[in-house]
Formats: sequence, structure tokens, C-alpha cells
Amino acid sequence: MVVERNDRRPTLEAVAARAGVSRATVSRVVNGGAGVRPAVRERVARAVAELGYVPNSAARSLVTRRTGAVAVIIGEPEERVFSDPFFGRQLRGIGRELAAADTQLLLLLVESRADRPRIGRYLAAGHVDGALMFSLHHDDPLPSVAARAGLPVVYGGRPGWAGAADDPGVRYVDTDNRDGARQAVRHLRERGRRAIAVITGPPDQTSAADRLAGYRDALAPGAADPRLVADGRFTADGGEAAMDRLLDAAPELDAVFVCSDLMASGALRTLRERGRRVPEDVAVVGYDDLEPAAWTDPPLTTVRQDVTEMGRLMARMLLREVADPQDAGPAAVVTPATLVVRGSSG
Amino acid sequence: MVVERNDRRPTLEAVAARAGVSRATVSRVVNGGAGVRPAVRERVARAVAELGYVPNSAARSLVTRRTGAVAVIIGEPEERVFSDPFFGRQLRGIGRELAAADTQLLLLLVESRADRPRIGRYLAAGHVDGALMFSLHHDDPLPSVAARAGLPVVYGGRPGWAGAADDPGVRYVDTDNRDGARQAVRHLRERGRRAIAVITGPPDQTSAADRLAGYRDALAPGAADPRLVADGRFTADGGEAAMDRLLDAAPELDAVFVCSDLMASGALRTLRERGRRVPEDVAVVGYDDLEPAAWTDPPLTTVRQDVTEMGRLMARMLLREVADPQDAGPAAVVTPATLVVRGSSG
Repeated sequence: MVVERNDRRPTLEAVAARAGVSRATVSRVVNGGAGVRPAVRERVARAVAELGYVPNSAARSLVTRRTGAVAVIIGEPEERVFSDPFFGRQLRGIGRELAAADTQLLLLLVESRADRPRIGRYLAAGHVDGALMFSLHHDDPLPSVAARAGLPVVYGGRPGWAGAADDPGVRYVDTDNRDGARQAVRHLRERGRRAIAVITGPPDQTSAADRLAGYRDALAPGAADPRLVADGRFTADGGEAAMDRLLDAAPELDAVFVCSDLMASGALRTLRERGRRVPEDVAVVGYDDLEPAAWTDPPLTTVRQDVTEMGRLMARMLLREVADPQDAGPAAVVTPATLVVRGSSG
Repeated sequence: MVVERNDRRPTLEAVAARAGVSRATVSRVVNGGAGVRPAVRERVARAVAELGYVPNSAARSLVTRRTGAVAVIIGEPEERVFSDPFFGRQLRGIGRELAAADTQLLLLLVESRADRPRIGRYLAAGHVDGALMFSLHHDDPLPSVAARAGLPVVYGGRPGWAGAADDPGVRYVDTDNRDGARQAVRHLRERGRRAIAVITGPPDQTSAADRLAGYRDALAPGAADPRLVADGRFTADGGEAAMDRLLDAAPELDAVFVCSDLMASGALRTLRERGRRVPEDVAVVGYDDLEPAAWTDPPLTTVRQDVTEMGRLMARMLLREVADPQDAGPAAVVTPATLVVRGSSG
């Protein structure tokens, strides 16, 4: 292939000629493909790709002021985004739903505070029809930037900044973290465990706060003990270190509820190194039911949340608001959590 | 925070008033910040973020036809992108270099063939100043879409499609995969290994083809044996299955060069399950020197490529071409590979 730079946009006619079909067929394919045979549709799609044809939607967007693109913003450094399978799952759900609406997903990474003003300008400058934001910490300035720019936003996880709970304009998809945590701790109690520790996520994320609240709900009366609580920062290394601190502070503990599978994989490393058998000496329950849960030895009892489905719901909610802000639907959707019992809890 | 939708763009004056500084100070900060005290710069940056102010660069872009955004396209499904630390590293390098040039990184995920026409339209529609593409398979249509649209592109890894090698318009950053593989296999021979197998990546990626070529370069004369070659598709599961096939086909093998650390982590699982000691029975060398290499037991001898630096170089090359297509610099940069010896090779 020789690279030819070309400023002229290819036309519908050029696509039709290349695909060997009529203009009307190209137009039908480009506008959804109804009533066109799969083989022909494929031929036209190939010609569109090869010629770099930009169909009417671009021209239409000049009228509708739609861009056909949605920003996804994850308020975590790349290091976490690309090592925690949670994000890949959620993006898969979002991507599929947006693709079905012929909308381009643009992932904007936030590595440091310094990135936020630039991202704020990008969001405010009209490049996207809306944004999906998740894993934001309470003090993140991007929600207010988006709000001031009038940009539709759907949050992944209930936003936790002051006033968010009372603001009908804040729209989000969440899972019932508090109930999931309750199920985990009740299960450990049913298995006869008495000194149940918890490894939490960062306290300024609502998912972490809700899971900690659920843990407290389900403890036996009087069983709360500050020595049994440690922050694992939602990372594998953090879970490893938190388990170490818990065993130092409360060597008698016989169970631990770990608020993510990734942290649980780290906690299991520490338990193995310190000679505690799982589940005989210490029963372990994780949260998420992502890949690490199936890989651990023994396999991890955990709380399942359907992350891909949450991504789809977020995208669907946003597309609905973009299509008609007056009929945006419910402001919040909360999906259920389900305990999955495996070997690590006995 | 109460969400207020607002269609009026905030002005420079509003930012100045909010930050309690002069218009000139805001302008200086927005245009680079030279000669402004850090505390003031920070105050202005906060006001810019809070108000969602879009500085002059947006207006300027109407003149220069620059968008201030660059697309990054990874030709792999999300599942791989978010489980292989390679991509996070490369994106970190790219992100830092683009951030230093106040340019927004937009990551476009490619889950299926059906996504490519939409991405092609996005690239051709003038939303970005250029694109960085990596992990493309030989038949990916996006390079020709970008070329026809006149969009500057820098590839991560030497492109492998027919004619790419002779095309001066194809620009890329690569690492010396062939030399890295040679170093790995020479090291195994020096440790006295005779039956050295290889687990390769997909043959339609040049990095995989180059590493296989380096393996063949460094074998003893006459030592090439088709039973000793298996494709692990650059995934952990693929490496696990490939190791199984190799042990079935050539039970006498005493070493394996695995063309990625992720595949090596899978191969080590198989070796453990089948009772082969590493390195006593089978010496193992990986490739990449990413996180999995340090986590394995024993730690993995591997070939280091500086992935973050490759990302930086790609971004720098693209920004240079965007700034001045007539002075775009060299068409290819190839970084060195270095053997890192740890426990897995004895």
C-alpha cells in the first residue's frame, strides 16, 4: 500500500462504483442496512472502509449538532485501569451499546490532576454528545465542568460529592453494594465465623463506603472492632498489605470480607505466606466475580455484579438523554448483587 | 453541587473574576503559564476547570484547523487490552507526551470487525489531528482509511501489510524484536540447553514474526524442529495450551523461549501441572519484562523492551508531523532490546 494523502472526500457515487451496487443501495446500507442482503452489506461496508467514505451522518450532525461520539472518563491512573478487569468489562458493555447506536466511544484517561483542565476543555468544547464517568473521587472537578457546559452525563456508581444525593440532575447506574456486602458477611456468619475482618476500598468512593456499611449492617451486635478494618485501595498490592496489617492487629481473625476480587488475590498471597490455611483458618469472600476470582487457589467465594450489563445500562441511559433531554427516563438504575459460593469460604 | 445546564460559554473575564486576578494573568496561564507564580497558576487553573472555560486554543483551532486531539487505536478486543499490561504502559508513555503538548488522547477500542467502518469515518471526519495505531493485524482496513483521509499516523510496531516495508510514508516506532529473540535463545544455549522450543504470537503480527525469526537465527545449525514451535496467541491461556502441545509433541524439550511474559505465565502453569521443574527440567525465557515477569515463581528471565518510552517516541513523532509535515523527521525509530536474567533460566 502506498500512502496517498488526499483532501477530497470520497462520494457516495465512488462507494457505489467500488462496491458495484447502486447509490440507493449504498445509502440504505449506510443508514442501517435494512433490506440489504448480508453479502452486499458486507461489500458496501468494505468499500466504505477502503475509501474512507464519511456518510451523511457527518453532514446531518452539522444540522443536529450531534457529533456521534461519547466520551468515557475513568478517574483512575492508567496503571489501575489496565490491570483491573472491571474496567475492561464495563467498557465492553458501553462499547457494544454505543456501537449498536453507531456512536463512537472515546476513552479519555486521567493520569494526574494536571490532565483534568485539558479534559474539561475538551468536554466543554462540543466534541462529544455526552459523557460517561466512573471511578471518580469525591473532589473531582469534571462533573461540574460538564454540568456547566450543559453536557449530558451518566455516572457509573452513585456519585458521592456533597449534594449529589439530592440533585435530580445527577444520573447514574449502580449496583446494590450495600446489600452485596450484607450477603457476604451473613454467609461468613452462617459458616460459623466470629471474628470477621474487612478490607475496604478508598473511603471517598461510594462503592467502598456502601460495602463497608453493608459489612457493618450484617455483623453480630457488638462485633464491630476497629482492629478488623483495613483499607486496601482496590489494588492487589493494597489487599496484600492490608491483610498483613489485619493479621498483626487481630491474629485471632477467622474470616475476611475483601471488597474486590483483585484485593482478595493479594490478601490470599499474604495468608499463604503467613501460613494461614484458606478456608480452614481464615475464610475469604471477595467482591466483583471477575477473572481473579476464578484463578485463585482455592477459588474465591465472591459477590457478583454484572459489570458488562451496568456498562450497557449507562450507555443506554446516556443515548436516551442525548436523543431527547425531555424524556431521559429514570435518574438512577440500581442492579442487584448475588453471592457466588466457592471454596474459599469453606 | 446542583447541576445547572448552561449554554453560554464562560469568558476570560469570568475566569479572571473567579480567580481574583487580571485578564492578562489568565491569558498568560492559559497560554503556557510562563512568568506566573505556581500558586496563582493553580488558582487560575482551578477557575478554568470550575467554569468550564474553553481558552483561545479552541478559537485558534478554527484557523489552524487543529483539533488538539489525537486518536489511539489498538487493534485488539478490549478483553486483551485490559488484561495485558503492555497496553497500559504504552498508553502511559503516549499520554504523558501528549499531555506535555496540551493534546488530548482519545482511545478508540476495536472490539469487532463491525467497529472498523465507524472508526474509519471518525478518523476521516476531521475530529483528530492524527492517530497512533498499534497491534494491528495485517488485513486491518484502518491504515488505508487514514492514508486516504490524509491523516498523519504513526504505528507502534513495524506494519506488516504488503508493501509497507517499501513505503516511505509509513512511519513507526518499533523495538528490535529479532535481536531480542536472538539474545534469549543464545542465553539458553549458553546454559547448555539443547532442545529449545518456542511459543510464538499470532503470525500476522510483525513482532511475533520477528521474534520467531530471531529464535531461528540463534538455534544451533540443524536444531530447527517443527515439533518445537507452537502459537500461543499472545495470551496467558494461549501460552498454557501451547506449552501443553509442545510437551506432548516433544517430551524431551529442556527449554522454551516464550514470546511474551503473559504467555510465559501460562506456560509456567502447565509446566507446574505436568510436574516439570523450572529451571531444572525446563528453562524458560519470556519477552517484555512487564509485571507478570516479576510475579512468577521462579522470577522470569525475559527480554526487556521499554514500552513506555516507545509510547513517548510514537507521540513525539506524530506531534512533529502534525506541527510540520515537511519536517516530520525519520520514518522509523527502533529501540534496543535487553536480556534480563532471573531464576527461570537457571
